[in-house]
Amino acid sequence: MERICNFSAGPAALPQEVLEQARDELLNWHGCGMSVMEMSHRGKEFTGVIEQAEADLRELLAIPANYKVLFLQGGATLQFAQVPINLLGGRSADYLVTGAWSQKAYKEAQRFGAVRCASSTEDTGFNRLFAPGEINLDPGAAYLHVCTNETIHGVEVHDCATLQASVPLVADMSSHILSRPVDVAKYGLIYGGAQKNVGPAGLTLVIVREDLLGHVMQGMPTMLDYRVHAENGSMLNTPPTFAIYMAGLVFQWLKRQGGLAEMERVNIEKAKLLYDAIDASALYRNPVEPASRSRMNVPFTLARPELDGAFLAEAKVRGLAGLKGHKSVGGMRASLYNAVSLEGVKILVNFMREFEQKNG
Amino acid sequence: MERICNFSAGPAALPQEVLEQARDELLNWHGCGMSVMEMSHRGKEFTGVIEQAEADLRELLAIPANYKVLFLQGGATLQFAQVPINLLGGRSADYLVTGAWSQKAYKEAQRFGAVRCASSTEDTGFNRLFAPGEINLDPGAAYLHVCTNETIHGVEVHDCATLQASVPLVADMSSHILSRPVDVAKYGLIYGGAQKNVGPAGLTLVIVREDLLGHVMQGMPTMLDYRVHAENGSMLNTPPTFAIYMAGLVFQWLKRQGGLAEMERVNIEKAKLLYDAIDASALYRNPVEPASRSRMNVPFTLARPELDGAFLAEAKVRGLAGLKGHKSVGGMRASLYNAVSLEGVKILVNFMREFEQKNG
Repeated sequence: MERICNFSAGPAALPQEVLEQARDELLNWHGCGMSVMEMSHRGKEFTGVIEQAEADLRELLAIPANYKVLFLQGGATLQFAQVPINLLGGRSADYLVTGAWSQKAYKEAQRFGAVRCASSTEDTGFNRLFAPGEINLDPGAAYLHVCTNETIHGVEVHDCATLQASVPLVADMSSHILSRPVDVAKYGLIYGGAQKNVGPAGLTLVIVREDLLGHVMQGMPTMLDYRVHAENGSMLNTPPTFAIYMAGLVFQWLKRQGGLAEMERVNIEKAKLLYDAIDASALYRNPVEPASRSRMNVPFTLARPELDGAFLAEAKVRGLAGLKGHKSVGGMRASLYNAVSLEGVKILVNFMREFEQKNG
Repeated sequence: MERICNFSAGPAALPQEVLEQARDELLNWHGCGMSVMEMSHRGKEFTGVIEQAEADLRELLAIPANYKVLFLQGGATLQFAQVPINLLGGRSADYLVTGAWSQKAYKEAQRFGAVRCASSTEDTGFNRLFAPGEINLDPGAAYLHVCTNETIHGVEVHDCATLQASVPLVADMSSHILSRPVDVAKYGLIYGGAQKNVGPAGLTLVIVREDLLGHVMQGMPTMLDYRVHAENGSMLNTPPTFAIYMAGLVFQWLKRQGGLAEMERVNIEKAKLLYDAIDASALYRNPVEPASRSRMNVPFTLARPELDGAFLAEAKVRGLAGLKGHKSVGGMRASLYNAVSLEGVKILVNFMREFEQKNG
C-alpha cells in the first residue's frame, strides 16, 4: 500500500509522520484508554492538547503576547463575514482584490457595511500584485483586507510592506500560513482555514490583536463574536477537538523540521524547481508575473490543452495526484504545501520533462 | 493498553470497531494512497464518502424525500442562532424551556426577533416534562422549539405528540439523535452536534423540510443560510471532511447493529439497569420524574456528597470514566450513548452497589 505524491490544493497532504502518530494513538491516547475524539473537551487531557497546540503555534510564528489565538470553525468563508462583523465598527474598510478568494471576501463584506475596493488586478486576469501607487487607500478605513496567497490564481504577497497599510492589516493566509516566518505584529488580524498547511478541514485559525476585539455588530450570533471566543479560550462550546489535536501534531512536526525559517528555505527550493522547469519549457506556461508568483500554488497550462487528459492520466500512473487545475482557470495546478517533499517535486518535474519530450 | 468505559457526556465514546477501521485506513483510504483528511472535498473519493454517509443516515432515520440533510459546522450553539435567522421570517416563535440547553437556545433566539417562552419547568429545577395544558402555544408562531433531550438535566421527550405542536416543530436532538427511531415527518427541522451519538466534534447535522428554506434574514452571513448549503450539497466551502467520514462509519456500524429499533431496545435495557439500581439504593438519587427520565444522560447525586471524590477515584481504578456531573448541577452523570455497551453499564452498576455497601 503505497502513498501518493499529493499536490491537492486543499484538503491537502499531511506529513506522514503526523498521520502515523495519529494512527498509533487513535484508540488510546497516551495510555488514557480513549481516543482524542472521545475526550471531554473540558477534561485535563484535552485541555493539555489545546494548550500545547496554542503554545507551539505561538512559538512557531513568534506571536506577540497582545494577540489572541482562536481555534474556530466554518473556514475562511465564514471569516469573510466574521471579519467585517467584528471589525467594521460602523466604519468602512478597504479590500485588495488580487484573485478569486479576495474577491469573495470583498463581496461577502458588502453585506455588512460600506466597504471599498482599494485596487483590483482583475483587468489583467489576476496575474500580478500591485505596482507602487496603484493602491488607493482610505486612511479612515477600519482595516485593509488582503489575501496574501491566492490559492486559485497563484499570486502571493511576499512582503506586506508593499501594501503601505496605515490602518490595521487583515490577512487571509489560508493557503500559505506556516510556510514561512511572518511578522505578526504587522497585522491586526490573520486568519486561515486549516486544510492546507495546518491540519484537517473543519478548523479555522484566527490570530487577532486584543485591542481590535469588542466592537462586534449588534444583532449577530454570539458564536460570531471573537471576544466571546477569546474570553472562553476557544471553548464557548465544544471545539473541533480532533482537528485541533491534528494541528498540534503538525505544529510539533514543524518544530522538529527546524521551524518556519527552515520550511521557507525548502519551500523556496521546491517552488524554484517547478517554476524553472515551467519557464524552460515550450509546453508548460505559468501566467503570473515572476515577482508575484506563489510558492505554494503553481497553476500552469499546457500549450496544447488537448493533452490535459493524457497529462493527468500519466501523472496518476506515476503516483502524482491532485494536479487538475481549478475549474475557473482550467489547466493544471501543483500545490507545494509543507507536507509536499522536495523529492516529490523532483518526481513531478522529471515527469513533466518526459511528458514534454514524448509529446514535443 | 486497555480501553476504558467512557460515560462522558460529549465528546463521548465511539464504537471501537469504528475507531479500528479509521485507524487501519488512516494513511491510505481504500488503496487510494492518501488519508481521508488529505482528499480534495470535490474529488470522486470524498464525494463518494459524503454521499454514502447521507444515504445511510436517510436509511437509518427513514428521512422523507422532501427533507434536506446538511452537514454543517459550529455545533448546536450556532444552530441556536441559525434556526431563528432562517425560520423566523419576521414572525415570532415559541420555545419550551426544559433545561440548560433549551434555555440557551431561547436566550440566543431573542437576538433575532420576538420569541416567546411557551412554558418552562425551571420552577421545579428542570426535573420533568410538561403536564397537559401547561403549554401555552401561539398558533401564529413560525415554529415551536424543543430540546428533546436535555444533556445536563437528564430530561427526555419520549413522544413529541405530547407537545401538541400545530406549527413546525424544531428539535435540538444533539444528545439522543440515532438512539431510537424518530418520525422525521413530525418535525420541521432537526439538528444536533455530532459529538455524542454521531461522530467527532466539529460536525453538526441539520435535517430540514424543504419548504422551510428560503426565508433567511437580510444582512446575515451567507454561511448561515440553510438554502445555500442545501443548494451546494453541504459543499459551499470545504466541509469538515474527516468528521463526515467518521460519522459515515458510525452510520454503517449502526446498520450492522440492526438499525435504530435495535439500538432503542438496548438503550432501554441499559437505562433501566442504571435507573433501577439508583432507585433501589439509599445512597444514589436521580432527581427527574420517572416518565421524563432520559435514556441517554443519567444525572445522579450521592446522599453524602463528601463521598463524591472517593466515588470518582474508585470508579477510575475500575476503568469507569467521565462520570463527574456537570458543574451547574454537581454530583455525577452517566451518559449511555450508543457506543456505551450493556456490559459497560453492568460494570458501572456493580461498582455502584459495591461502593454503597462499603460506605453504607
